[in-house]
Amino acid sequence: MKVDGKDMRPIWFNQDSQTVQVIDQRVLPHELIIMDITTVDDAIYALKEMVVRGAPLIGATGALGTYVALVQEKNAGADDAYFTSECARLKAARPTATNLVWGVERVMAAALAQSDYKKRVHAALAQALDVVEQEAVNCEKIGKHGLSLIQDIAEKKNREPVNILTHCNAGWLACVEYGTATAPMYTAFDAGIPIHVWVDETRPLNQGSRLTAWELGKHGIPHTVITDNAGGHLMQHGMVDLVMVGTDRTTRAGDVANKIGTYLKALAAKDNNIPFYVALPSSTFDWEITDGIKDIPIEERNPEEIRLVQGLVNGKLKQVLVPPAGSAAANHAFDVTPARLVTGFITERGLCEASEAGILGLFPEKTMQQEPAPGQEMC
Amino acid sequence: MKVDGKDMRPIWFNQDSQTVQVIDQRVLPHELIIMDITTVDDAIYALKEMVVRGAPLIGATGALGTYVALVQEKNAGADDAYFTSECARLKAARPTATNLVWGVERVMAAALAQSDYKKRVHAALAQALDVVEQEAVNCEKIGKHGLSLIQDIAEKKNREPVNILTHCNAGWLACVEYGTATAPMYTAFDAGIPIHVWVDETRPLNQGSRLTAWELGKHGIPHTVITDNAGGHLMQHGMVDLVMVGTDRTTRAGDVANKIGTYLKALAAKDNNIPFYVALPSSTFDWEITDGIKDIPIEERNPEEIRLVQGLVNGKLKQVLVPPAGSAAANHAFDVTPARLVTGFITERGLCEASEAGILGLFPEKTMQQEPAPGQEMC
Repeated sequence: MKVDGKDMRPIWFNQDSQTVQVIDQRVLPHELIIMDITTVDDAIYALKEMVVRGAPLIGATGALGTYVALVQEKNAGADDAYFTSECARLKAARPTATNLVWGVERVMAAALAQSDYKKRVHAALAQALDVVEQEAVNCEKIGKHGLSLIQDIAEKKNREPVNILTHCNAGWLACVEYGTATAPMYTAFDAGIPIHVWVDETRPLNQGSRLTAWELGKHGIPHTVITDNAGGHLMQHGMVDLVMVGTDRTTRAGDVANKIGTYLKALAAKDNNIPFYVALPSSTFDWEITDGIKDIPIEERNPEEIRLVQGLVNGKLKQVLVPPAGSAAANHAFDVTPARLVTGFITERGLCEASEAGILGLFPEKTMQQEPAPGQEMC
Repeated sequence: MKVDGKDMRPIWFNQDSQTVQVIDQRVLPHELIIMDITTVDDAIYALKEMVVRGAPLIGATGALGTYVALVQEKNAGADDAYFTSECARLKAARPTATNLVWGVERVMAAALAQSDYKKRVHAALAQALDVVEQEAVNCEKIGKHGLSLIQDIAEKKNREPVNILTHCNAGWLACVEYGTATAPMYTAFDAGIPIHVWVDETRPLNQGSRLTAWELGKHGIPHTVITDNAGGHLMQHGMVDLVMVGTDRTTRAGDVANKIGTYLKALAAKDNNIPFYVALPSSTFDWEITDGIKDIPIEERNPEEIRLVQGLVNGKLKQVLVPPAGSAAANHAFDVTPARLVTGFITERGLCEASEAGILGLFPEKTMQQEPAPGQEMC
């Protein structure tokens, strides 16, 4: 997407220097710093410390990180065991987003299909770039499929701005291009539909007020930052027409793990009859599980992310301590919104209900083979 | 309550200097600064800028502020019109908490009942101090009445700590002594019942992480600061036994206006079958209204409170800018939790259901006179 007239993505392969590069999202919106990923440790650091974040971008970083694992280990390049163990380290960098495992495994498989080291590197890079491009293409499709939801409301509102609430950053910074939750917003705005976005600040790391507000502002989309506490009140008073969020992992039954606090917004949307949509590329589906609350591991991060808040003071980025020095904090990074609270999904293949039947209607290839009943098995 | 072994209240009348003094709650927990209230403008500033906050303390400040209005205007002291207009300014300082009007009007009435200026001042001070004491006594009673709720859970948990979640600060800083929501916690803790409190940080002004955490820490009560986003996840996973919050205005039907975000916690408690109690002195009842969402005015405060976050850096209090400089913010300070989401009230007279019948059971003197039916009126 454009940043001050220049095309930008949150991750790319620099052909000149032959390195993977990323935007350091920790210092946005006040600084724009580019970081090189030249080792697996760099990739793990970028993932763990949230230099990069957002499910699709985590997948893309896993994919390009797997390529880096091969290049870094020139001598060990032909050593499948070492390569596999490096990939295992990468996959473990963050537990909740399923895209990480998906991105790493796609590139691993492409690499290991080649026995010649040079061919292996070539195949890994091609596959990693394909993962990145695929995320961009999928997000563009999500934008087109989600457009009708905004359009329909705009028509009913007689061209009054459509008020959309979003939580965290499911924008292009999280997704290579367009974003997931933001893709329909960009598409609608570019089509001349008047929209206004309520941006949840999204404590503790403020991905909403730092990243989503920055993205939307750079694109010229009217938006207002609110606290994570405010959405329920706005919904009670008719100030929200639609909620759109992303997801880090989605079960085959439609439960959604997304940034902590998403569940609370889904409850408020339900209580006020406001449509609550989750936008996702199919790479965020975990086809193996159905019960999100029981089966999705929720990452617990460093409590200092809650105790310290980062921002600009006298032109410099600083962190301030908010609670008493002696008070503990707990930092659960995600929560699970049960499918019953989700109005629908916006995927690269179209819209569907947040249910196994709805999802399999769009992804029939994921229908499970009926396991033979015990009696049949005996035959 | 005790602060480092010394008795403290958030407001008091200093007999030596004959001045009203308050703790400046804007700079806690990192600094403890006392401010004098010597003019009505001081009192209005303290209320508007949230030097003092919390419904009962707002009422107490209104009461002592009314006394200050009399003293300040020695020449105009006998001028009822001027005194009344100063009181009107005081009452308008914050719109949501009903205690402000209640506190001011009680002292006004006591003063205006006297015609002699000296007697008037004396009556105003006596009445204002009575308002302050009454809030302290009511909170102590709330603590005793709420104790059984915690005790019952403790018995079922076989002396495992009872996990209580609270939002904002409904502690002694908000209430003269004990607090409202915190009163049962202090009472339970002092009675040796093991408790642990999840403290919502309560953006934008972080009354939870700054004030509630400070209070609980000074009293030795185990507590953990969490983001406002986290409560739903904790409830889904059995980590919350009970929610206790305060209220700034309560309708006769049991709707509750409290710090923005309370409604979201009430929804999550309902969705997870967790008891959600609101603790209140009866001074927060607005007996004139029933529909909180329609009839309670919700204060909109300065958006800079969202954009700037205050904390300690290098030993100094600073404010850091979080979102992009060009992004707008909206700052609604309260939301309304409908009575249907409230398990019950803890008042100075005991526990009751959050319904008109439940409330009137404790406060039968507030039963409205049946208005004559139109036909009867004709007779």
